[in-house]
Amino acid sequence: MSGTQSSLLVVGSVAYDTVRTAYESGEGLLGGSASHFSFSAALTGVTSRLVAVVGDDFKAEDLARLEAVGADLAGVAHRPGASFRWGGEYNADFSERQTLFTELGVFESFEPELPEDFAREKIVFLANIHPSLQAQVLEATTEPDLVALDTMNLWINITPVELKAVLPKVDLLFINDEEARLLGEHHNLVRAGEEILKLGPKAICLKKGEHGVLLFVDGEIIPLPAYPVRKLIDPTGAGDSFAGGVMGVLAKAGTLNAESLRDAALAGSVLGSLAVEGLGVTGLEGRKVAEFTDRLSHFKELLGISSKT
Amino acid sequence: MSGTQSSLLVVGSVAYDTVRTAYESGEGLLGGSASHFSFSAALTGVTSRLVAVVGDDFKAEDLARLEAVGADLAGVAHRPGASFRWGGEYNADFSERQTLFTELGVFESFEPELPEDFAREKIVFLANIHPSLQAQVLEATTEPDLVALDTMNLWINITPVELKAVLPKVDLLFINDEEARLLGEHHNLVRAGEEILKLGPKAICLKKGEHGVLLFVDGEIIPLPAYPVRKLIDPTGAGDSFAGGVMGVLAKAGTLNAESLRDAALAGSVLGSLAVEGLGVTGLEGRKVAEFTDRLSHFKELLGISSKT
Repeated sequence: MSGTQSSLLVVGSVAYDTVRTAYESGEGLLGGSASHFSFSAALTGVTSRLVAVVGDDFKAEDLARLEAVGADLAGVAHRPGASFRWGGEYNADFSERQTLFTELGVFESFEPELPEDFAREKIVFLANIHPSLQAQVLEATTEPDLVALDTMNLWINITPVELKAVLPKVDLLFINDEEARLLGEHHNLVRAGEEILKLGPKAICLKKGEHGVLLFVDGEIIPLPAYPVRKLIDPTGAGDSFAGGVMGVLAKAGTLNAESLRDAALAGSVLGSLAVEGLGVTGLEGRKVAEFTDRLSHFKELLGISSKT
Repeated sequence: MSGTQSSLLVVGSVAYDTVRTAYESGEGLLGGSASHFSFSAALTGVTSRLVAVVGDDFKAEDLARLEAVGADLAGVAHRPGASFRWGGEYNADFSERQTLFTELGVFESFEPELPEDFAREKIVFLANIHPSLQAQVLEATTEPDLVALDTMNLWINITPVELKAVLPKVDLLFINDEEARLLGEHHNLVRAGEEILKLGPKAICLKKGEHGVLLFVDGEIIPLPAYPVRKLIDPTGAGDSFAGGVMGVLAKAGTLNAESLRDAALAGSVLGSLAVEGLGVTGLEGRKVAEFTDRLSHFKELLGISSKT
């Protein structure tokens, strides 16, 4: 990697969410992978340049909320039609989520188009979209230093060939435990991760939700816990918030190795913990940077890890 | 606590296990909570004084295996009848265990009797037995410095009054996630742990198996990962092996606080990882101390924790 970066490219969704929980609920909440990611990365001091699509029903005031944390929306296409809308309902203890509806709208025909200066970004995060679109974005970029990719069960199941074609171009794969077992064909997560490494990604961030992560990097497997959450409000977007923190810290570190990825994952976990304490993106939006850095220092102190700063 | 100790008291079972897995199986395996515990504590340099009961079918050569790691068996009663025998079968990926049989034998009428010098041990581990027996053992001891207790769903369900009577006398409670949710009456483990603290124990080691632990100590909640296990052979006794490591390190530390418990739990996790790599107690029996200390150093290095030694 060619040194520290203060911005990055994120390709994903900007959407409206409906969330129902036993405690708080809301409709038309600013959501989507790129939104959660951007609010999180912003708290690490890194701004996001978004490639996404919205319909003509998307409110300017909601886009302004993203711009308020430094997001560059020059890559957000405006298309006639409805914006991507998703609804989900959690059970009382958040152990299960039921999808209420998925209305793709203009997202269904999403063709990522990169403004010229976006294509030169050195850090690229490909949020969970069709692997062929992820590959298409990579084609359009100019020698990025760090390419990270998120995926899901759907693509592992229906587009395994396309997914496996793009994985060798990936430096860091984000994948959760269930998806890792499916892609790695092992129940044991260590074995699953080892199999996935053979598919090409240089490193893996294997996410286990409240149980933390397993990092596969530099020939090591690093287990890290998650920051304990006492009051869960809305887990929607926790994974993208985690990824935003990881990518922000890696962008600033300017290098991907065991040490930088461990630091990045601890920060990502803390940002994930802040994210789930509010409905939609409000767990991160409007937070002071000190809330993030104080909690990160506390986390490291709990673990007995000495902070370098 | 009145300083470092090189021995401790453990009250529990010495038994014969039958274990079936997709890979290795065995019958008449030396097992029981006190056995697994003792082999583990021995690797931390701390010897166990066992209070248990065996039948007249128990082989002298199996007791000699415990004595070979320094265990003092003066508190192991020999009674006419059959020894405690348990059998279990794991599914291929170890996500489920089916109990094949539980034959209590002489363990059914177990009345722990402490030799006089055992009663003066400063460190006491009450493995998972009826809470009234656990209380009875505590009555027989002379001002121990550190009392730890393990329990299970059965006692939480059928003897809650007896269990809650003994908890205020406990310094460190070992409990797994499922049991914690039952006793703490919260699905969220942070909340469950907080509720359990109100029942009296000074600290809690909340075990999540392969996902590590949550330590409730000194007003903090410390999440720690488990050492990743690539080749699981037999998970039987993993919890007791973990506890043996925790108690051994605490005995040597001579104090129970956030720092000593964190160190102890990391050691316990490493010993648990060694334990599950062999059938019955063979994952620990015959291991060199360096195998434990090398893996512990590696674990701390992975986490970015500087070792003091």
